[in-house]
Amino acid sequence: MSKLFMFEKPLGMRDTLPRLYETKAAARDKISTEIKKWGYQFIETPALEYYETVGEASAILDQQLFKLLDQQGHTLVLRPDMTAPIARAAASKILKEQVPLRLAYSANVYRAQQREGGRPAEFEQIGIECIGNGSISADAEMITLMADVLLAAGLKDFKISIGHIGFLQELFLSILGNEERASVLRKFLYEKNYVGYREHVKSLPLSSIDKQRLIAFISLRGGEDTISRALELLENSVGQETLTELKELAQQLKAYGVEEYVSFDLTLVSHMSYYTGTLFEVYAGEVGSPIGNGGRYDNLLAKFGWNAPATGFAIRMDRLVEAVGSVDENNETQCILFSSERRNDAISTARALRAQGKSVALQDINSVTNVDAYTASFAEVQFFVGNGDSKK
Amino acid sequence: MSKLFMFEKPLGMRDTLPRLYETKAAARDKISTEIKKWGYQFIETPALEYYETVGEASAILDQQLFKLLDQQGHTLVLRPDMTAPIARAAASKILKEQVPLRLAYSANVYRAQQREGGRPAEFEQIGIECIGNGSISADAEMITLMADVLLAAGLKDFKISIGHIGFLQELFLSILGNEERASVLRKFLYEKNYVGYREHVKSLPLSSIDKQRLIAFISLRGGEDTISRALELLENSVGQETLTELKELAQQLKAYGVEEYVSFDLTLVSHMSYYTGTLFEVYAGEVGSPIGNGGRYDNLLAKFGWNAPATGFAIRMDRLVEAVGSVDENNETQCILFSSERRNDAISTARALRAQGKSVALQDINSVTNVDAYTASFAEVQFFVGNGDSKK
Repeated sequence: MSKLFMFEKPLGMRDTLPRLYETKAAARDKISTEIKKWGYQFIETPALEYYETVGEASAILDQQLFKLLDQQGHTLVLRPDMTAPIARAAASKILKEQVPLRLAYSANVYRAQQREGGRPAEFEQIGIECIGNGSISADAEMITLMADVLLAAGLKDFKISIGHIGFLQELFLSILGNEERASVLRKFLYEKNYVGYREHVKSLPLSSIDKQRLIAFISLRGGEDTISRALELLENSVGQETLTELKELAQQLKAYGVEEYVSFDLTLVSHMSYYTGTLFEVYAGEVGSPIGNGGRYDNLLAKFGWNAPATGFAIRMDRLVEAVGSVDENNETQCILFSSERRNDAISTARALRAQGKSVALQDINSVTNVDAYTASFAEVQFFVGNGDSKK
Repeated sequence: MSKLFMFEKPLGMRDTLPRLYETKAAARDKISTEIKKWGYQFIETPALEYYETVGEASAILDQQLFKLLDQQGHTLVLRPDMTAPIARAAASKILKEQVPLRLAYSANVYRAQQREGGRPAEFEQIGIECIGNGSISADAEMITLMADVLLAAGLKDFKISIGHIGFLQELFLSILGNEERASVLRKFLYEKNYVGYREHVKSLPLSSIDKQRLIAFISLRGGEDTISRALELLENSVGQETLTELKELAQQLKAYGVEEYVSFDLTLVSHMSYYTGTLFEVYAGEVGSPIGNGGRYDNLLAKFGWNAPATGFAIRMDRLVEAVGSVDENNETQCILFSSERRNDAISTARALRAQGKSVALQDINSVTNVDAYTASFAEVQFFVGNGDSKK
């Protein structure tokens, strides 16, 4: 373990400098405004939770958790996601009275990384949870609001893929017979390793018809016709109900007018193991990883003592900002440099400009070593020095 | 170690529910806007830093640090304050070019608590740092901007006490002769235990004149005349320069027009050991602890390899909000309850209201178990059910 340099940061930890900070802030502001227009209320939960409660309810791998011991000997975790903490808070008496609950958050989450140059270990999510609402209307609201907030943030080129983990699971179990085999296939799908999936299916001790059905399954991606094609794969009524749900969902999304942003992908599998029904992922532009995802999780609240269905989504702010591209805003900050005898003039000029909403750095010229370097980044510079003033 | 209930949170950790969330957000927004008008740029630093670097540079007691080990064997800390992380980031090449630097932050900091019912272990600070600026103009800017942001946040009744740790230290050392004795007296002052201070001074092996000077010292609190009274305590030129600085500061604060919000308290001592010059604390209304504090720290940046003077302040959002009082805002969110046959009407009505900036929860009535309970909290409720619609 070598000596650290003073300026070093822990693995995956980053500073956010002014330009990116303001780009993120602008996107966050637009998204929050839209979320509130849909009747969602923002809450905040602590960064640290008990491992035994929220830590275990989160669907994040143990090795990705930042863990520490508190002074009472309990293991704490830095929250790795927001859905479990919101579920804990929602299950508290105060919030439970108004069902269905519409809650929102904007918060950093923490996932330990194994190597440098990898993913960030701290990143911001903005998201919503609709709790106590098992209807397809709620699923449709999630996907519509996801599209709406992305449009509000200035994103044009994005696609929401919709799947149904219930359908996938019922089909897999009916063909494969047990969860162990199903989980192997789900892993191939999660990794989007379709070649591996096919090879594995061929190696299974199944009838050629069943193998054919599993192979055909991975082509269940595309427009609304995907749902009808999925129906053809069914042998009996198993899975039929979930497809009826998806058809109804597709209808409702048309009623909302967001059909152009959605497609269906019945092979969709999430790393979040708590999803139980429809789930979705958003890809945008050239960004390689999903900028957001969501879905129905009808069993999570029960862990916190409240048997309530729920659905929600989360957006990764870093990836969203990457997709939107940085707003090439000029620094509009002005600068007033003064010497002490002109302090009063400088103060009153700065005050007047600020009252107009302008940003003004008021700077005693005697504390500036290099005036050229200092003034270079300002949009405008005024000098109140000696007996006259001048604009640069 | 007893089994935890699922809804429990770690010691000192709290949820922020919607009303408080919005009150805090409104205050944060007003303060950030004002800070940006003074030419400060917001940055964000990671929640986790190395103990060896930022952890040790922070002036927070070791027992208050949340520590954890990363996978490389380094000790990490949850940042206990923001000044040290900002100093680390400022000392990086990118930011160092534009001196004096004006940086701002709005972030949660973490301090482990020993018992329940005590202080929060996670709280939000909003603050600024002016780096590479050793002038009294910078000190005056800190105090003026502190007053301005508090006024912008809606606070009327507050007082900024200004001290000078350099003056105090010079006087103590000239009378007491060594740092050990000075630190004992500083501790009494930090605890505002003036009785204990007096008793301790009486017990010291000093001349009665020196004892008298130390006793007179603790009355150095009040208006600008405090500075002249302090001058009378000096035996030689020791401490004179710092008082000249304070006089100049008082003049500049008058030029800014904030003299009504300030008073002087030369006995002021901070728990932040990195302060080197003027320092200040703000008290407001009935709040027992300071809602903000700041001061000059000319030696901290050197720890990060940059020998630059600096000054800054931080505001505790929880205490500020307590002082301002919660805005008794009514929930203006409307609700539209619909049954499926009227979905389209409901969607278009909600869309029209949202376009006007209204907040509307759109709710499928079939997922609501108790319509009366659900609708109780909304400002207005519309039903789109069956063949007619009605307002409630």
